[in-house]
Amino acid sequence: MFNQLGLIGCGLMGGSFALALKKAGLVRRVVGYSKSPSTVEKARRLGVIDVAAESALLAVSGSDIVIIAVPVAATESTFRAIRHLVDPGVLFMDVGSTKRDVVDAARRVLKERLPSFVPAHPIAGREVAGIEHADAQLYQGRKVILTPLQQTDPVLVQKATDVWAAIGCQVLKMTPENHDTAFAAVSHLPHLVAFAYINAMQQQPSGREFLSLAGPGFRDFTRIAASEPTVWRDILLSNREEILKQSEAFRATLDAMERSMRDWDGEALQQQIQSASDSRSQWTLSTHTPPSGPSGGGKTSR
Amino acid sequence: MFNQLGLIGCGLMGGSFALALKKAGLVRRVVGYSKSPSTVEKARRLGVIDVAAESALLAVSGSDIVIIAVPVAATESTFRAIRHLVDPGVLFMDVGSTKRDVVDAARRVLKERLPSFVPAHPIAGREVAGIEHADAQLYQGRKVILTPLQQTDPVLVQKATDVWAAIGCQVLKMTPENHDTAFAAVSHLPHLVAFAYINAMQQQPSGREFLSLAGPGFRDFTRIAASEPTVWRDILLSNREEILKQSEAFRATLDAMERSMRDWDGEALQQQIQSASDSRSQWTLSTHTPPSGPSGGGKTSR
Repeated sequence: MFNQLGLIGCGLMGGSFALALKKAGLVRRVVGYSKSPSTVEKARRLGVIDVAAESALLAVSGSDIVIIAVPVAATESTFRAIRHLVDPGVLFMDVGSTKRDVVDAARRVLKERLPSFVPAHPIAGREVAGIEHADAQLYQGRKVILTPLQQTDPVLVQKATDVWAAIGCQVLKMTPENHDTAFAAVSHLPHLVAFAYINAMQQQPSGREFLSLAGPGFRDFTRIAASEPTVWRDILLSNREEILKQSEAFRATLDAMERSMRDWDGEALQQQIQSASDSRSQWTLSTHTPPSGPSGGGKTSR
Repeated sequence: MFNQLGLIGCGLMGGSFALALKKAGLVRRVVGYSKSPSTVEKARRLGVIDVAAESALLAVSGSDIVIIAVPVAATESTFRAIRHLVDPGVLFMDVGSTKRDVVDAARRVLKERLPSFVPAHPIAGREVAGIEHADAQLYQGRKVILTPLQQTDPVLVQKATDVWAAIGCQVLKMTPENHDTAFAAVSHLPHLVAFAYINAMQQQPSGREFLSLAGPGFRDFTRIAASEPTVWRDILLSNREEILKQSEAFRATLDAMERSMRDWDGEALQQQIQSASDSRSQWTLSTHTPPSGPSGGGKTSR
């Protein structure tokens, strides 16, 4: 049980974390800060936060758990704003989709206060952004990746593990490097491809007409293309080396399939499709069923 | 009201059409044929067809409506097998995802019997194939594209329009050429990309580990990669010119985004994402609510 959650960044991810902690009875009050005063006010009106703070530092003041839920590129300036109150024993976490850049920023700015920071990436989200979509169930049944460093306080890593588990997450640990390599492959490249695909459609004279004919396959394939531009600009930039490597691998398999098409090689093409189809048919989203307990767990989301 | 539906190819698409016609009270009996005897038998046991035919020609014999629901590359041989019974006044349709190749095959084989054939492409489907997944609701609320030719009997085009409307479809008409161009963009390229993406993942040493970390974004983006290999081999081959053109346009916008990433040009990258995100956010799957009537319509699927 925490006394006070300091929420920095009142958006979908941070707001949902606050609501989940409240719902699980894990926090007495939530103090929130956002760059935009109207957003903080909205968060207060919606009951996501109890008190509006006028700065990130004031949201940290008096908190025993702090979550930084801002676009990854804003993480470093957030660390700068709060570093004087990054005290031992207080659990600091982020929710960023990239971890190497976040960890680098933490090293640069937090220095001897680094042990208090437990980098976290919950694998959850939605194509709608904003505090008004915050949902206490967002993390239920999802994975969260923690990427603690050698210096990270093990007591805080355990606390972080417990709090994510209590709101329904399966907690995994990885190095920041392995995290970024894996998510370039399974998440960042698909986003890049979906954005580029929509742009290609749009730039054609008949693009609008084409779109009106699109069906359920298109709907699902492009769902992630509606994601938040600033968030994804930051992710694509901060993990660009890994993403570009994944894109190269993807272009090679795309080339191979197009070669089969050009060569009219039905046998090779069918093998290429079969291999993809088998692999995808065997895959299932591992939803985690948390043990029931005081957190009210036991249900999986969706 | 039809007396007898001849179903050639007992799979998801054809089986669902048969069930939909039965459910709407539009047909007295269904005679089905499939290359595989065990499939025909299964279709009979499941009540999708009433009578098993030993050849495509026997499925046509005595039918006043015939649906050819085979992978597109098998359309021409099917036309050859049945052409002696392609009689005026009998409505012949297919359900293929490409139309130029089907129409070319029809011209070559059916010749003076061409007017009886109304090419059709219902925009519906599923990643699971096979008669056991046939569903009377599959076409409910979906679009169907008819691509009649100058020679096509207008009376049969009207009959085709009526029968698809009666099972809940919105009926659109296009030329085979425009159809293939549009569907290369909104359906065929996404499939090619999804197949290639999964293959790229698989070919990496850590691919399996990556897949275990994938979340809901991956799930939706790759859903279509589980599609039926033979069906998609035929589509990718038969519409390859248009698909390769679309792939080129896609590679150009992907190049442009990667250039922004390499140049560390956050402003350009954000614009590129914003444009995709706005476009996708505005798009909605137009589901069609058919008027209620004797077909029992009035509900939209999903």
